[in-house]
Amino acid sequence: MSPFPNNLAEAIEWLSSYGAVPDGGVTRTLYSKPWKEAQQVLKEWMEELGLQTSYDPIGNLFGRLASKDSMAPTILVGSHIDTVLSGGKYDGAYGILAGILALKHFKEHQGHPKVNLEVVSLCEEEGSRFPIACWGSGMMTGIYCIQDINGFRDSEGICFEQAMKEAGFGIGEQPDVVRSDISAFVELHIEQGPSLERLQKSIGIVQSIVGQKRFRITVKGEPNHVGTTLMKWRKDALLGAVTMIHDLYGLTKEYDEDFVTTVGQLFVEPNVPNVIPGQVEFTVDARHPVNSVLSIFCEQFKRQFLEIAQKLGLEIGIEIWHNVQPVQMDAKLQQIVQTICINSNISYHVMNSGAGHDSQLFARMCPTALVFVPSQGGISHSPSEYTSNHDLETGLSVLIQLLHRLAYK
Amino acid sequence: MSPFPNNLAEAIEWLSSYGAVPDGGVTRTLYSKPWKEAQQVLKEWMEELGLQTSYDPIGNLFGRLASKDSMAPTILVGSHIDTVLSGGKYDGAYGILAGILALKHFKEHQGHPKVNLEVVSLCEEEGSRFPIACWGSGMMTGIYCIQDINGFRDSEGICFEQAMKEAGFGIGEQPDVVRSDISAFVELHIEQGPSLERLQKSIGIVQSIVGQKRFRITVKGEPNHVGTTLMKWRKDALLGAVTMIHDLYGLTKEYDEDFVTTVGQLFVEPNVPNVIPGQVEFTVDARHPVNSVLSIFCEQFKRQFLEIAQKLGLEIGIEIWHNVQPVQMDAKLQQIVQTICINSNISYHVMNSGAGHDSQLFARMCPTALVFVPSQGGISHSPSEYTSNHDLETGLSVLIQLLHRLAYK
Repeated sequence: MSPFPNNLAEAIEWLSSYGAVPDGGVTRTLYSKPWKEAQQVLKEWMEELGLQTSYDPIGNLFGRLASKDSMAPTILVGSHIDTVLSGGKYDGAYGILAGILALKHFKEHQGHPKVNLEVVSLCEEEGSRFPIACWGSGMMTGIYCIQDINGFRDSEGICFEQAMKEAGFGIGEQPDVVRSDISAFVELHIEQGPSLERLQKSIGIVQSIVGQKRFRITVKGEPNHVGTTLMKWRKDALLGAVTMIHDLYGLTKEYDEDFVTTVGQLFVEPNVPNVIPGQVEFTVDARHPVNSVLSIFCEQFKRQFLEIAQKLGLEIGIEIWHNVQPVQMDAKLQQIVQTICINSNISYHVMNSGAGHDSQLFARMCPTALVFVPSQGGISHSPSEYTSNHDLETGLSVLIQLLHRLAYK
Repeated sequence: MSPFPNNLAEAIEWLSSYGAVPDGGVTRTLYSKPWKEAQQVLKEWMEELGLQTSYDPIGNLFGRLASKDSMAPTILVGSHIDTVLSGGKYDGAYGILAGILALKHFKEHQGHPKVNLEVVSLCEEEGSRFPIACWGSGMMTGIYCIQDINGFRDSEGICFEQAMKEAGFGIGEQPDVVRSDISAFVELHIEQGPSLERLQKSIGIVQSIVGQKRFRITVKGEPNHVGTTLMKWRKDALLGAVTMIHDLYGLTKEYDEDFVTTVGQLFVEPNVPNVIPGQVEFTVDARHPVNSVLSIFCEQFKRQFLEIAQKLGLEIGIEIWHNVQPVQMDAKLQQIVQTICINSNISYHVMNSGAGHDSQLFARMCPTALVFVPSQGGISHSPSEYTSNHDLETGLSVLIQLLHRLAYK
């Protein structure tokens, strides 16, 4: 009996055993032992299915169903193999496994495609071991270069290059990794949000991946005795921060529904009940699919923050530490997916992705399609991450039809 | 040459050398080695000045200038010897040293008083080693009992009773400590706030020590991905907390100037930039000299908090963990101090104390006067705590006149 899975449900369980942790989650960080084992068994499975496999120098794994035309370009399908700490079974893994099963289907039923079909297990997207997200796709598209990892160490002090070498990879020259033959990239992924479930749709067709701007705000006041300092004499950094955050959410309401703003992290100094806060540091994360809208919002809130600080006699520092432009998915590919859904009587929703994905990098190089399936409760990055088999299979059927249309017609 | 100080300025520096720490502050926590040494040198100095000294069983130190009338009551003057970690030279110490110098003055110039005059170095007020404030005065007034310390351990795991025994103290029966002969208590203290400095007044005559209510608020929402969860679908615990705190400060403005409210401590869970806060815990500290006003305010803010939580779909828990009633200082004694200031052409301000003091405990047993001198910049509990010699001497002169009026007229 084959040690390899026969369908999507089996495949999800099988792959999640590599890096399984006691709480039911999966921890498979870049270049770790379970990561290497998972890439290796995927390679063996693809070989058993008759695909031509290869690693690139940084550990991206490919399985190729070649065209007879040696000059033909390549349609790449896949997602990422790495996870966050104690993440779910579906995030990333689903896109790779569905890609393999799609190519298995074509190999068994359709023979050689007109263009090369290649599934990729991208080595890294989350950035959970080292502080660099989408390393695999960033290197393939030439958006990152090897120097970008200089100085990065994981939480145990192991440097990026050493971790890569210990996993059996490592490159001298960047051009080894960049691919110039890719004519399209297709990624199937769980939504990681609640929209499809709430709207009772089976497929999400992504128009754009939102732009993100992240800021660190530092508000400085004067720590003083809470009992002996009248309200009018205070310079309360937390009062300042609270007023700013309150106004930030008020401002967000004036924008369209696609606008999301979050203060996720906040630290108070000295953070004791009987001292007026002398300093507060907090983050602002703002996301929207239209860059100019995002920029206008950020200018507005910064102006408001400065006014509040001035009014309350506080000092303020505003530092941007993450700035990613929105990226459009290919309009033609969106149309094809929409047509497939309509013809197959599959409910769909045209939407934006509020989370980053490898597609974001590929879209800057080639026509790219990002297709979502529902996430139960919108939960992701957690052992509770779940998508029903029915939804997983629906996504796979859309993927097969899309690739068939692109590679056989 | 005498090892003891000749005036207030010398006395402050001399006492602060017991427990001096490298940052310029003083760390003299209850029953510690520097605390014991400081009590001991105070005892030796008082003996050299001709006062009758004694410790009570828990370590309160007394120096007595006795009346010839063996049935006469006792007027007690003093403050506390202990400090916070790296506290200032003046907090507590000033009231003891001024008390000793006042009795020195009477001994040298006035002879036997009509009532006994006694200076006390109270063993503990801050509660910085064990979680019990005003232990010395609480035991003397019978408001605390020995059982109140059961289970208390310091940060090194040493239990209260053991620490007391190692310092040479320890009681079997409570009545040993309670004093029934006290006819008045007088405490001279630094303001620890900026009012006197800002108003350019030399003396603060305290009307009442404010009541305090402290709460711990827990707001629970749902942690979710910041990119994939639309604003309308969020249960953001920090948005809830921020709205509550914003409203809390708005409500405070509707009250009189004596009302102070503070959120000094706030914790966010999971407190990472890209996850919507699932839980926020924060403290509310509310203080006012009139108990009914304080109670009405607290009922109002609790009702507002519940409404906000309900509106945003959040769970909320409100727990009160500190509840101290306001305490009035003696009106007659206030009048006497006021008359002294007017006759001596000393500027004064009738005010409330937003901080707790030993006077708070004595006021429940006997007529009590609490008199402030200015704190530079309002700073206290810090090595930067400072009061000018001129202001210290003004306070001492008021104290001498007050005690003279009470004990010799």
